[in-house]
Amino acid sequence: MIIDCHGHYTTAPKALEEWRNRQIAGIKDPTEMPKVSELSISDDALRESIETNQLKLMKQRGSDLTIFSPRASFMAHHIGDFAISSTWAAICNELCYRVSQLFPDNFIGAAMLPQSPGVDPKTCIPELEKCVKQYGFVGINLNPDPSGGHWNSPPLSDRHWYPIYEKMVEYDIPAMIHVSTSCNACFHTTGAHYLNADTTAFMQCLTADLFKDFPTLRFVIPHGGGAVPYHWGRFRGLAQELKKPLLKDHLLKNIYFDTCVYHQPGIDLLTRVIPVENILFASEMIGAVRGIDPETGHYYDDTKRYIEGSTLSAEDRYKVYEGNARRVFPRLDKALKAKGH
Amino acid sequence: MIIDCHGHYTTAPKALEEWRNRQIAGIKDPTEMPKVSELSISDDALRESIETNQLKLMKQRGSDLTIFSPRASFMAHHIGDFAISSTWAAICNELCYRVSQLFPDNFIGAAMLPQSPGVDPKTCIPELEKCVKQYGFVGINLNPDPSGGHWNSPPLSDRHWYPIYEKMVEYDIPAMIHVSTSCNACFHTTGAHYLNADTTAFMQCLTADLFKDFPTLRFVIPHGGGAVPYHWGRFRGLAQELKKPLLKDHLLKNIYFDTCVYHQPGIDLLTRVIPVENILFASEMIGAVRGIDPETGHYYDDTKRYIEGSTLSAEDRYKVYEGNARRVFPRLDKALKAKGH
Repeated sequence: MIIDCHGHYTTAPKALEEWRNRQIAGIKDPTEMPKVSELSISDDALRESIETNQLKLMKQRGSDLTIFSPRASFMAHHIGDFAISSTWAAICNELCYRVSQLFPDNFIGAAMLPQSPGVDPKTCIPELEKCVKQYGFVGINLNPDPSGGHWNSPPLSDRHWYPIYEKMVEYDIPAMIHVSTSCNACFHTTGAHYLNADTTAFMQCLTADLFKDFPTLRFVIPHGGGAVPYHWGRFRGLAQELKKPLLKDHLLKNIYFDTCVYHQPGIDLLTRVIPVENILFASEMIGAVRGIDPETGHYYDDTKRYIEGSTLSAEDRYKVYEGNARRVFPRLDKALKAKGH
Repeated sequence: MIIDCHGHYTTAPKALEEWRNRQIAGIKDPTEMPKVSELSISDDALRESIETNQLKLMKQRGSDLTIFSPRASFMAHHIGDFAISSTWAAICNELCYRVSQLFPDNFIGAAMLPQSPGVDPKTCIPELEKCVKQYGFVGINLNPDPSGGHWNSPPLSDRHWYPIYEKMVEYDIPAMIHVSTSCNACFHTTGAHYLNADTTAFMQCLTADLFKDFPTLRFVIPHGGGAVPYHWGRFRGLAQELKKPLLKDHLLKNIYFDTCVYHQPGIDLLTRVIPVENILFASEMIGAVRGIDPETGHYYDDTKRYIEGSTLSAEDRYKVYEGNARRVFPRLDKALKAKGH
């Protein structure tokens, strides 16, 4: 089985975006604020949006199951206040839940949280609990910068975030550390902000002792870990300067990298440098880079081709494709086992 | 000849830091503000600080000439106003000039600029001109975020920066795009802020058409280009989505990467992905990572070992070690030729 641990619902029916635009307009003019009930998307519309997009590509490329969360760039936690984010997160998570019900063999949910800049993260817990308990979601996306590029929240090692971590430990779910749209003109969203956040999150963990407080806490750092594997020597050296343990002991029991790196040399570096136990297959397909690479004739985000093109053994590929995901997402493993997988 | 295009005076005599601390105290209490004349560092002190550090390692490792600029993390453009930065930059640049006079075969200067958040970059031009004309400096360091991690200056493609670019073109000097200390708790200076800035700067250029306005402008992106080479497929794909030319045409006539990547797999990726014409040897020695790698028994920042360990041909090594630096820093080439090199 091939599990893609990083998929977003980037292809939701247009009605979702239209509702969101009305909600954003409603922040300035409350008479414009739409009701949740005014958003109506049929099962057929959901089915079509998935069958003609993600599911089609999954079948073509040969992956089986995607851990599916709301569109990352649309989370836009910087817009409005907690109430705005709360309504929006609930809508987006419910859609992912419905997709997982319509295609139970191919999709399982991960939650976006109703984060809002300056608001205590514990306000996210009711949505998190609903997603885990009622929707059967197996993970969350945690945004280390809900301001959208101004970086004015405390680092991930700060107690500010502990209420979320306590729930993650209680439910045994990991978090993918994933920012949303940048509203800072310096940072292109998918070309700078995403990668910067990955590097930043890793370094926030490196300088701290967060995993002493939460030995079972697990983070997935997406986009191949930002700049981290490429600069693995720098990070090993910085840990050494800071008198931290070796990275394998200090961080690699808790931090995992996905394979959203869109060319063969990048995946080759990732698999050469990072222990295979810490690499989870992912594509973030129909995401930042949707085109065909003229150098290969294949989609940039068809990351399975790069894994197949790497020197990983069959045993190691199993870990990357399935084994590690089952370990990092125990609720996924349980759901699969309940179905006889 | 082996030219290291990225060295900072990280080992300046203690008196420099003491003067700076007094200057910082003087911002709050003007009676504490030291005079420039109160800083006195003898030639012997300069000589010793170089001979026992950079020059010793250059001889041990086998590099000949370092393009030498003030300590990047000490630029701290966010501290005080333009007058503070101006005095501080003048002091730091003069020390690098004196080092280049004491060791003319081994060091040549690159200038820090007296940037200050919110201040028009054209205020930096007198210092830039002094460094080029009087000190014989061959490049500058340009900080895309003088706020130190708040990223509230316009992107590098904005006309805000054009006065600097006009002078760079006039004097035919490149800029290394290099931030300074982060005063944002989210960003570790050398483990996150530096690498993020590298990635950010590249993407700012990718989304814009800056090099149409300045076809001969040249940027060196340090630290191996941040996350860029590792995610080269992503960047190629993003350029494609944005209907930009191929990166080799869009950016690689103007952007260069240094080799400050502190492990063999990283350098192997860099040399595999980036055309050799765009790679300049550098170590940033006695910088962020000063220790010995227990996996190799050698200094992390002894980057020459990685170049030697790569598959580059002798001809390509010449380009990385010398040829490209002469092309990107024409004033360096001229200075070397004047000495018969």
